[in-house]
Amino acid sequence: MREVAIVGIGCTKFGEMWDKSFRDLFIEAGLMALADARVSGAQIEALYGGNMSSGIFLEQEHVGALIADYSGLTANNVPSTRVEAACASGGLALRSGVIAVASGYHDVVISAGIEKMTDVGAEKAMDALAAAADREWEAAVGATFPGLYAMMARAHMHEFGTTREQLAQVAVKNHYNGSMNPRAQFRNRITIETVVNSPLVADPLRLFDCSPITDGAAAVVLVPAARAKEFTDTPIYIKAAAQASDSISLHDRRSLTSIDATTVAADRAFKMTKLQRSKIDVAEVHDCFTIAEIMAIEDLGFFEKGAGGPATIAGETAIGGKIPINPSGGLKACGHPVGATGVKQAVEIVEQLRGDAGKRQVDGAEVGLTHNVGGTGGTVVVHILAR
Amino acid sequence: MREVAIVGIGCTKFGEMWDKSFRDLFIEAGLMALADARVSGAQIEALYGGNMSSGIFLEQEHVGALIADYSGLTANNVPSTRVEAACASGGLALRSGVIAVASGYHDVVISAGIEKMTDVGAEKAMDALAAAADREWEAAVGATFPGLYAMMARAHMHEFGTTREQLAQVAVKNHYNGSMNPRAQFRNRITIETVVNSPLVADPLRLFDCSPITDGAAAVVLVPAARAKEFTDTPIYIKAAAQASDSISLHDRRSLTSIDATTVAADRAFKMTKLQRSKIDVAEVHDCFTIAEIMAIEDLGFFEKGAGGPATIAGETAIGGKIPINPSGGLKACGHPVGATGVKQAVEIVEQLRGDAGKRQVDGAEVGLTHNVGGTGGTVVVHILAR
Repeated sequence: MREVAIVGIGCTKFGEMWDKSFRDLFIEAGLMALADARVSGAQIEALYGGNMSSGIFLEQEHVGALIADYSGLTANNVPSTRVEAACASGGLALRSGVIAVASGYHDVVISAGIEKMTDVGAEKAMDALAAAADREWEAAVGATFPGLYAMMARAHMHEFGTTREQLAQVAVKNHYNGSMNPRAQFRNRITIETVVNSPLVADPLRLFDCSPITDGAAAVVLVPAARAKEFTDTPIYIKAAAQASDSISLHDRRSLTSIDATTVAADRAFKMTKLQRSKIDVAEVHDCFTIAEIMAIEDLGFFEKGAGGPATIAGETAIGGKIPINPSGGLKACGHPVGATGVKQAVEIVEQLRGDAGKRQVDGAEVGLTHNVGGTGGTVVVHILAR
Repeated sequence: MREVAIVGIGCTKFGEMWDKSFRDLFIEAGLMALADARVSGAQIEALYGGNMSSGIFLEQEHVGALIADYSGLTANNVPSTRVEAACASGGLALRSGVIAVASGYHDVVISAGIEKMTDVGAEKAMDALAAAADREWEAAVGATFPGLYAMMARAHMHEFGTTREQLAQVAVKNHYNGSMNPRAQFRNRITIETVVNSPLVADPLRLFDCSPITDGAAAVVLVPAARAKEFTDTPIYIKAAAQASDSISLHDRRSLTSIDATTVAADRAFKMTKLQRSKIDVAEVHDCFTIAEIMAIEDLGFFEKGAGGPATIAGETAIGGKIPINPSGGLKACGHPVGATGVKQAVEIVEQLRGDAGKRQVDGAEVGLTHNVGGTGGTVVVHILAR
């Protein structure tokens, strides 16, 4: 199995991109990644595109071919594959690209993620997102994603004493980080009062506990580690690419307060790297709701179960803290174009490990982790990256 | 790169399965494949699921997790990945599984394909299928799939003199083959008159030139070739797994009478195997419309360009002919559950190479080929399998 490196990254601004189409977005991210890797389209041998629901959002499937076509990569008839696992589609695109390079089938591969969500109304967007849950046993009986995560939040508060303020602090921290990220959808700093006084969405989750609906795209260029120095002086190596599944519906889980697929994917990833959790300098985790970040930092093993909320209030997950979490602003502030998020997380970690993260730089970051969740935890993808 | 073998196959009956859900179908195909490979679910290390449009058909995305969940594979939290390239989704699921095993990431992998199409009305089904074309430049201005392939048929008739009767003979042959396939949706034998007197769909294509809307699922179990004999006495080896893309829209192609992605994918596959075309004993090709089979047998290199129609009339593609094409009955008679077709093709070739194809057995078949097309040729996947 060949080791794989990231030698180029690209990411659009995230937000409500009224003047850019689905096609514009992936072209922009892809061209940035190619330029960063100093490769031409002619050198690309395969493409993996993560996208959740272009079928519902745009009435367009077959987006692998669409991306290859509009990116001008059909001149070489590059194999182009769409992968989908709801909000973990981007993480899967990255892992699929890593496996393709590791296998020897392809040398120079683009893994991209893309979602254009804002062209439909909020009602249709919410219904599209509900397609990530079990349609027959959850969505069809009225469960929305905020509702499902609200149940997890209530259970976590009950079981561990997690407080309203601890949840809010996740959003406060991520908005602070996002204020330093030129790509972020929201760059306004907020306070705990902003969160706790915002409109109720699904008790206890309020508007500022929720990640937004967003347009955006991100891309990385992957090559065999042995060839990385042909493309860049600062390759970032993929030390682990791990994936796990669990029941798609929440009611079939062992626990409401842990996402087991996170624990399993993390265990698999750390086993591949033979690293301890303490070696991780920075992580991008899947904070689709504030409770999700607290569960993630516990389930990934950075904090004991139940200690995620207090650690957040204590600043341990801030830039400069024990383990900086979501320096990009996370899904909360950076925005959450569902298919793009998993790749954007890798783009952020690459910038951190290169030392290119500007005001949000985590000093001396050498090893980073990404954690991307599909649905309420039916799919989890974890990558560990290192200089 | 490790060689990969198929050690188990499963396939549901294809048709209008009013009494079976999406979930029932993949469970049935998966269990058949597990039983055939004599493996338990606990041995499965990863799952790849090809599905085109559960989002539009069923308002359900995240079907990788759904399949793992309802198949009982979440006990081991197996990684489960949905891949999509319209009607080539099944072929991509197979190739993705092959790459995963070749890479060394996973040893025992299921590649499955599934589509449940008949639960929505014909109008919504046609619109879902149009999502395989370029929505903005084709479908939005009224082009349907029969319309797009009709243009190819007209061009082929104009350029090469292909006749109405030659097109019809594809359907006659495939219905004949399908009559011997217990899984086929249509098992009635027809004549050229049946085809040319059937209702006009998109001139020159008539009802019997078109593959139907179908429910079904198929699955194969993949392992490293070196381990194949642990599972079966009759492993079938995957000698090549090749994929190519082209413009998603027809008007951007070099030619209307060839699918270049077929030519390129076939060239890549034959280059991997170092075999000549003449070594192929049997092939399953993508006959979504009768013209598609004629173009496929030309573009794959089995016949000179323009010779596909005459060869078909002459019986060269019948069982017992020079190169038997679509002994399963093809998409035309077997049915075309779009995400399942690419895997069903592999199931048929495995049965042929094992000598288990019953009345439709191609005598002495040792090497077979599958050819799966997404849309009008935006994606093509070609596999070569051998005893």
